[in-house]
Amino acid sequence: MQSLQAKAAEWSGVDSADAFAIDESNLFEKLGLQAFVNLSTNFYNRVYDDEQEWFRSIFASSKKEDAIQNQYEFFVQRMGGPNLYSQRRGHPALIARHRPFPVTHEAAERWLHHMQQALDTSSDIDAESKLKMMNFFRHTAFFLVAGDELKKNQTQAQQPPPSKHGTSNNHHACKKI
Amino acid sequence: MQSLQAKAAEWSGVDSADAFAIDESNLFEKLGLQAFVNLSTNFYNRVYDDEQEWFRSIFASSKKEDAIQNQYEFFVQRMGGPNLYSQRRGHPALIARHRPFPVTHEAAERWLHHMQQALDTSSDIDAESKLKMMNFFRHTAFFLVAGDELKKNQTQAQQPPPSKHGTSNNHHACKKI
Repeated sequence: MQSLQAKAAEWSGVDSADAFAIDESNLFEKLGLQAFVNLSTNFYNRVYDDEQEWFRSIFASSKKEDAIQNQYEFFVQRMGGPNLYSQRRGHPALIARHRPFPVTHEAAERWLHHMQQALDTSSDIDAESKLKMMNFFRHTAFFLVAGDELKKNQTQAQQPPPSKHGTSNNHHACKKI
Repeated sequence: MQSLQAKAAEWSGVDSADAFAIDESNLFEKLGLQAFVNLSTNFYNRVYDDEQEWFRSIFASSKKEDAIQNQYEFFVQRMGGPNLYSQRRGHPALIARHRPFPVTHEAAERWLHHMQQALDTSSDIDAESKLKMMNFFRHTAFFLVAGDELKKNQTQAQQPPPSKHGTSNNHHACKKI
Protein backbone atom coordinates (compact mmCIF):
# COMPACT_ATOMS: atom_id res chain seq x y z
CA MET A 1 0.00 0.00 0.00
CA GLN A 2 1.23 3.46 -0.89
CA SER A 3 2.09 5.47 2.21
CA LEU A 4 0.27 8.62 3.31
CA GLN A 5 3.37 10.56 2.44
CA ALA A 6 3.68 9.07 -1.05
CA LYS A 7 0.02 9.81 -1.83
CA ALA A 8 0.36 13.35 -0.54
CA ALA A 9 3.41 13.93 -2.75
CA GLU A 10 1.76 12.42 -5.83
CA TRP A 11 -1.56 14.23 -5.51
CA SER A 12 -0.16 17.59 -4.45
CA GLY A 13 2.84 17.60 -6.76
CA VAL A 14 4.92 18.73 -3.77
CA ASP A 15 7.52 16.32 -2.44
CA SER A 16 8.58 16.08 1.21
CA ALA A 17 11.71 18.16 0.78
CA ASP A 18 9.70 21.09 -0.60
CA ALA A 19 6.77 20.62 1.78
CA PHE A 20 8.99 20.70 4.85
CA ALA A 21 11.32 23.42 3.60
CA ILE A 22 9.39 25.52 6.16
CA ASP A 23 11.84 23.98 8.65
CA GLU A 24 14.95 25.32 6.91
CA SER A 25 14.55 28.65 8.67
CA ASN A 26 12.36 29.87 11.53
CA LEU A 27 9.33 31.44 9.85
CA PHE A 28 7.78 32.46 13.18
CA GLU A 29 10.86 34.46 14.14
CA LYS A 30 10.97 36.01 10.69
CA LEU A 31 7.28 36.95 10.43
CA GLY A 32 6.04 37.35 14.00
CA LEU A 33 2.76 36.31 15.60
CA GLN A 34 0.59 39.01 14.05
CA ALA A 35 1.33 37.85 10.50
CA PHE A 36 -0.08 34.43 11.36
CA VAL A 37 -3.15 35.88 13.07
CA ASN A 38 -3.76 38.09 10.04
CA LEU A 39 -3.33 35.21 7.60
CA SER A 40 -5.81 32.94 9.38
CA THR A 41 -8.30 35.78 9.78
CA ASN A 42 -8.01 36.62 6.09
CA PHE A 43 -8.36 32.94 5.17
CA TYR A 44 -11.43 32.23 7.29
CA ASN A 45 -13.14 35.45 6.25
CA ARG A 46 -12.99 34.03 2.73
CA VAL A 47 -14.07 30.54 3.77
CA TYR A 48 -17.07 31.68 5.79
CA ASP A 49 -18.14 33.93 2.89
CA ASP A 50 -17.52 31.33 0.20
CA GLU A 51 -20.07 31.55 -2.61
CA GLN A 52 -19.92 27.77 -2.87
CA GLU A 53 -22.36 26.54 -0.28
CA TRP A 54 -21.05 22.93 -0.19
CA PHE A 55 -17.69 24.21 1.03
CA ARG A 56 -18.98 26.96 3.33
CA SER A 57 -21.38 24.58 5.06
CA ILE A 58 -18.60 22.37 6.35
CA PHE A 59 -17.57 25.12 8.74
CA ALA A 60 -21.09 26.01 9.86
CA SER A 61 -20.85 24.09 13.11
CA SER A 62 -17.76 25.99 14.29
CA LYS A 63 -17.37 29.59 15.39
CA LYS A 64 -15.15 31.54 13.04
CA GLU A 65 -13.02 32.90 15.88
CA ASP A 66 -12.32 29.36 17.11
CA ALA A 67 -11.36 28.21 13.63
CA ILE A 68 -8.99 31.17 13.32
CA GLN A 69 -7.34 30.50 16.68
CA ASN A 70 -6.94 26.76 16.08
CA GLN A 71 -5.33 27.44 12.74
CA TYR A 72 -2.88 30.20 13.64
CA GLU A 73 -1.82 28.44 16.84
CA PHE A 74 -1.02 25.32 14.85
CA PHE A 75 0.85 27.28 12.17
CA VAL A 76 2.84 29.20 14.81
CA GLN A 77 3.82 26.00 16.60
CA ARG A 78 4.69 24.13 13.40
CA MET A 79 6.71 27.01 11.96
CA GLY A 80 9.11 27.56 14.82
CA GLY A 81 7.06 29.47 17.41
CA PRO A 82 5.84 28.62 20.91
CA ASN A 83 3.72 25.50 21.36
CA LEU A 84 0.44 27.39 21.71
CA TYR A 85 -1.58 24.67 20.04
CA SER A 86 -0.36 21.73 22.11
CA GLN A 87 -0.59 23.58 25.41
CA ARG A 88 -4.26 24.18 24.71
CA ARG A 89 -5.35 21.16 22.65
CA GLY A 90 -2.62 18.51 22.76
CA HIS A 91 -0.95 16.91 19.78
CA PRO A 92 -2.04 18.27 16.40
CA ALA A 93 -3.14 14.74 15.37
CA LEU A 94 -4.04 16.27 12.01
CA ILE A 95 -5.79 13.31 10.43
CA ALA A 96 -7.80 12.37 13.51
CA ARG A 97 -9.02 15.93 14.04
CA HIS A 98 -10.27 16.02 10.46
CA ARG A 99 -12.10 12.74 10.90
CA PRO A 100 -15.58 14.34 11.09
CA PHE A 101 -15.11 15.90 7.66
CA PRO A 102 -14.81 14.02 4.37
CA VAL A 103 -11.67 15.62 2.98
CA THR A 104 -11.94 15.13 -0.76
CA HIS A 105 -9.58 16.16 -3.55
CA GLU A 106 -12.10 18.85 -4.53
CA ALA A 107 -12.33 20.21 -0.99
CA ALA A 108 -8.54 20.29 -0.67
CA GLU A 109 -8.36 22.35 -3.87
CA ARG A 110 -11.04 24.76 -2.60
CA TRP A 111 -9.21 25.14 0.72
CA LEU A 112 -5.98 25.86 -1.18
CA HIS A 113 -7.73 28.35 -3.47
CA HIS A 114 -8.78 30.44 -0.46
CA MET A 115 -5.35 30.11 1.15
CA GLN A 116 -3.62 31.23 -2.03
CA GLN A 117 -5.91 34.28 -2.14
CA ALA A 118 -5.21 35.00 1.51
CA LEU A 119 -1.45 34.76 0.95
CA ASP A 120 -1.66 36.90 -2.20
CA THR A 121 -3.28 39.68 -0.16
CA SER A 122 -0.91 39.40 2.85
CA SER A 123 1.43 42.37 2.84
CA ASP A 124 3.27 41.23 5.97
CA ILE A 125 4.64 37.98 4.49
CA ASP A 126 7.55 38.04 2.02
CA ALA A 127 7.41 36.18 -1.29
CA GLU A 128 9.89 33.45 -0.32
CA SER A 129 7.97 32.65 2.87
CA LYS A 130 4.70 32.59 0.94
CA LEU A 131 6.11 30.01 -1.44
CA LYS A 132 7.41 27.82 1.38
CA MET A 133 4.10 28.06 3.23
CA MET A 134 2.05 27.28 0.15
CA ASN A 135 4.14 24.17 -0.55
CA PHE A 136 3.59 23.06 3.02
CA PHE A 137 -0.15 23.75 2.80
CA ARG A 138 -0.54 21.99 -0.54
CA HIS A 139 1.28 18.87 0.59
CA THR A 140 -0.58 18.86 3.91
CA ALA A 141 -4.00 19.27 2.28
CA PHE A 142 -3.42 16.15 0.21
CA PHE A 143 -1.87 14.33 3.15
CA LEU A 144 -5.28 14.84 4.76
CA VAL A 145 -7.06 13.56 1.64
CA ALA A 146 -4.89 10.44 1.96
CA GLY A 147 -5.84 10.25 5.64
CA ASP A 148 -9.50 10.53 4.76
CA GLU A 149 -9.24 7.61 2.34
CA LEU A 150 -7.67 5.55 5.11
CA LYS A 151 -10.86 6.12 7.06
CA LYS A 152 -13.01 5.03 4.12
CA ASN A 153 -10.95 1.89 3.61
CA GLN A 154 -11.39 0.98 7.24
CA THR A 155 -15.12 1.58 7.10
CA GLN A 156 -15.42 -0.51 3.96
CA ALA A 157 -13.45 -3.30 5.54
CA GLN A 158 -15.70 -3.33 8.58
CA GLN A 159 -19.03 -2.84 6.91
CA PRO A 160 -20.97 -4.75 4.29
CA PRO A 161 -20.79 -3.03 0.90
CA PRO A 162 -23.38 -0.25 0.60
CA SER A 163 -26.19 -0.74 -1.89
CA LYS A 164 -25.32 2.61 -3.42
CA HIS A 165 -21.92 4.20 -3.38
CA GLY A 166 -20.07 7.11 -4.82
CA THR A 167 -23.13 9.30 -4.55
CA SER A 168 -23.38 12.82 -3.21
CA ASN A 169 -22.42 14.11 0.20
CA ASN A 170 -18.85 14.07 -0.84
CA HIS A 171 -18.23 17.79 -0.88
CA HIS A 172 -16.46 18.61 2.30
CA ALA A 173 -13.14 20.03 3.20
CA CYS A 174 -10.20 20.22 5.46
CA LYS A 175 -10.87 22.32 8.51
CA LYS A 176 -8.59 23.56 11.24
CA ILE A 177 -5.66 22.36 9.18
CA MET B 1 -17.88 15.58 24.73
CA GLN B 2 -14.63 15.70 26.64
CA SER B 3 -11.73 16.64 24.39
CA LEU B 4 -8.83 14.35 23.53
CA GLN B 5 -6.63 16.60 25.60
CA ALA B 6 -8.91 16.51 28.65
CA LYS B 7 -9.15 12.73 28.54
CA ALA B 8 -5.39 12.41 28.18
CA ALA B 9 -4.85 14.65 31.21
CA GLU B 10 -7.42 12.85 33.33
CA TRP B 11 -6.29 9.32 32.52
CA SER B 12 -2.56 9.99 32.63
CA GLY B 13 -2.60 12.34 35.59
CA VAL B 14 -0.31 14.65 33.59
CA ASP B 15 -1.72 18.00 32.51
CA SER B 16 -0.74 19.84 29.35
CA ALA B 17 1.71 22.17 31.04
CA ASP B 18 3.70 19.22 32.42
CA ALA B 19 3.33 17.10 29.28
CA PHE B 20 4.68 19.82 27.01
CA ALA B 21 7.35 21.06 29.40
CA ILE B 22 9.64 19.24 26.93
CA ASP B 23 9.36 22.48 24.93
CA GLU B 24 10.77 24.71 27.68
CA SER B 25 14.29 23.83 26.63
CA ASN B 26 15.77 22.07 23.63
CA LEU B 27 16.22 18.45 24.71
CA PHE B 28 17.77 17.44 21.41
CA GLU B 29 20.53 20.02 21.76
CA LYS B 30 21.06 19.00 25.34
CA LEU B 31 21.16 15.23 24.79
CA GLY B 32 22.27 14.71 21.19
CA LEU B 33 21.07 12.23 18.59
CA GLN B 34 22.77 9.17 20.04
CA ALA B 35 20.88 9.40 23.32
CA PHE B 36 17.60 9.13 21.40
CA VAL B 37 18.84 6.23 19.27
CA ASN B 38 19.99 4.45 22.43
CA LEU B 39 16.69 5.06 24.22
CA SER B 40 14.55 3.69 21.40
CA THR B 41 16.86 0.71 20.95
CA ASN B 42 16.71 -0.01 24.68
CA PHE B 43 12.92 0.40 24.67
CA TYR B 44 12.22 -1.87 21.69
CA ASN B 45 14.65 -4.53 22.91
CA ARG B 46 12.40 -4.76 25.96
CA VAL B 47 9.18 -4.68 23.93
CA TYR B 48 10.21 -7.37 21.47
CA ASP B 49 11.33 -9.56 24.38
CA ASP B 50 8.29 -8.90 26.53
CA GLU B 51 7.24 -11.96 28.52
CA GLN B 52 3.62 -10.88 28.01
CA GLU B 53 2.70 -12.31 24.64
CA TRP B 54 -0.42 -10.16 24.14
CA PHE B 55 1.76 -7.06 24.17
CA ARG B 56 4.73 -8.47 22.26
CA SER B 57 2.48 -9.79 19.48
CA ILE B 58 1.31 -6.31 18.53
CA PHE B 59 4.73 -5.54 17.16
CA ALA B 60 5.20 -8.85 15.37
CA SER B 61 4.32 -7.45 11.94
CA SER B 62 7.03 -4.77 12.09
CA LYS B 63 10.78 -5.09 11.93
CA LYS B 64 12.41 -3.99 15.15
CA GLU B 65 14.87 -1.72 13.36
CA ASP B 66 12.01 0.10 11.62
CA ALA B 67 10.15 0.57 14.90
CA ILE B 68 13.32 1.99 16.47
CA GLN B 69 13.93 4.42 13.60
CA ASN B 70 10.33 5.63 13.48
CA GLN B 71 10.37 6.28 17.19
CA TYR B 72 13.69 8.07 17.59
CA GLU B 73 13.10 10.19 14.50
CA PHE B 74 9.76 11.34 15.92
CA PHE B 75 11.26 12.01 19.36
CA VAL B 76 14.17 13.96 17.84
CA GLN B 77 11.83 16.09 15.74
CA ARG B 78 9.38 16.72 18.56
CA MET B 79 12.08 17.57 21.08
CA GLY B 80 13.84 20.29 19.15
CA GLY B 81 15.94 18.44 16.58
CA PRO B 82 15.85 18.23 12.79
CA ASN B 83 12.63 17.13 11.12
CA LEU B 84 13.88 13.64 10.31
CA TYR B 85 10.46 12.07 10.75
CA SER B 86 8.49 14.42 8.51
CA GLN B 87 11.08 14.43 5.75
CA ARG B 88 10.76 10.65 5.54
CA ARG B 89 7.13 9.97 6.52
CA GLY B 90 5.19 13.26 6.61
CA HIS B 91 3.21 14.60 9.52
CA PRO B 92 3.35 12.49 12.68
CA ALA B 93 -0.47 12.14 12.62
CA LEU B 94 -0.10 10.18 15.84
CA ILE B 95 -3.66 8.96 16.22
CA ALA B 96 -4.10 7.97 12.57
CA ARG B 97 -0.84 6.02 12.51
CA HIS B 98 -1.97 4.05 15.57
CA ARG B 99 -5.31 3.26 13.94
CA PRO B 100 -4.44 -0.39 13.15
CA PHE B 101 -3.78 -1.08 16.84
CA PRO B 102 -6.37 -1.06 19.62
CA VAL B 103 -4.63 1.23 22.11
CA THR B 104 -6.16 0.31 25.45
CA HIS B 105 -5.48 1.69 28.92
CA GLU B 106 -3.71 -1.58 29.73
CA ALA B 107 -1.53 -1.39 26.64
CA ALA B 108 -0.61 2.21 27.37
CA GLU B 109 0.51 1.18 30.86
CA ARG B 110 2.58 -1.69 29.48
CA TRP B 111 4.20 0.66 26.93
CA LEU B 112 4.99 3.10 29.73
CA HIS B 113 6.38 0.33 31.95
CA HIS B 114 8.94 -0.55 29.30
CA MET B 115 9.75 3.11 28.63
CA GLN B 116 10.29 3.76 32.34
CA GLN B 117 12.68 0.80 32.47
CA ALA B 118 14.49 2.06 29.38
CA LEU B 119 14.85 5.55 30.87
CA ASP B 120 15.96 4.13 34.23
CA THR B 121 18.82 2.33 32.48
CA SER B 122 19.83 5.26 30.23
CA SER B 123 23.09 6.71 31.51
CA ASP B 124 23.21 9.40 28.81
CA ILE B 125 20.02 11.21 29.88
CA ASP B 126 19.98 13.41 32.99
CA ALA B 127 17.30 13.07 35.68
CA GLU B 128 15.47 16.30 34.84
CA SER B 129 15.21 15.38 31.16
CA LYS B 130 14.00 11.89 32.09
CA LEU B 131 11.20 13.39 34.16
CA LYS B 132 10.12 15.75 31.38
CA MET B 133 10.22 12.98 28.81
CA MET B 134 8.25 10.57 30.99
CA ASN B 135 5.54 13.20 31.54
CA PHE B 136 5.36 13.72 27.79
CA PHE B 137 5.21 9.96 27.13
CA ARG B 138 2.58 9.35 29.80
CA HIS B 139 0.30 12.11 28.55
CA THR B 140 0.82 11.05 24.93
CA ALA B 141 0.10 7.38 25.62
CA PHE B 142 -3.28 8.28 27.07
CA PHE B 143 -3.89 10.84 24.33
CA LEU B 144 -3.65 7.84 22.01
CA VAL B 145 -6.03 5.82 24.18
CA ALA B 146 -8.48 8.72 23.80
CA GLY B 147 -7.85 8.69 20.05
CA ASP B 148 -8.54 4.97 19.94
CA GLU B 149 -11.91 5.44 21.65
CA LEU B 150 -12.78 8.03 19.03
CA LYS B 151 -12.33 5.30 16.46
CA LYS B 152 -14.58 2.92 18.36
CA ASN B 153 -17.29 5.55 18.70
CA GLN B 154 -17.20 6.14 14.98
CA THR B 155 -17.40 2.46 14.22
CA GLN B 156 -20.31 2.01 16.61
CA ALA B 157 -22.14 4.96 15.09
CA GLN B 158 -21.79 3.52 11.60
CA GLN B 159 -22.44 -0.11 12.33
CA PRO B 160 -25.32 -2.02 13.84
CA PRO B 161 -24.55 -3.07 17.42
CA PRO B 162 -22.52 -6.28 17.50
CA SER B 163 -24.16 -9.36 18.94
CA LYS B 164 -21.25 -9.73 21.31
CA HIS B 165 -19.12 -6.94 22.60
CA GLY B 166 -16.46 -6.27 25.16
CA THR B 167 -14.90 -9.63 24.56
CA SER B 168 -11.25 -10.46 24.09
CA ASN B 169 -8.89 -9.17 21.43
CA ASN B 170 -8.54 -5.97 23.30
CA HIS B 171 -4.95 -6.37 24.34
CA HIS B 172 -2.94 -4.19 22.05
CA ALA B 173 -0.71 -1.23 22.41
CA CYS B 174 0.70 1.94 21.08
CA LYS B 175 3.34 1.39 18.47
CA LYS B 176 5.67 3.77 16.73
CA ILE B 177 4.60 6.47 19.14
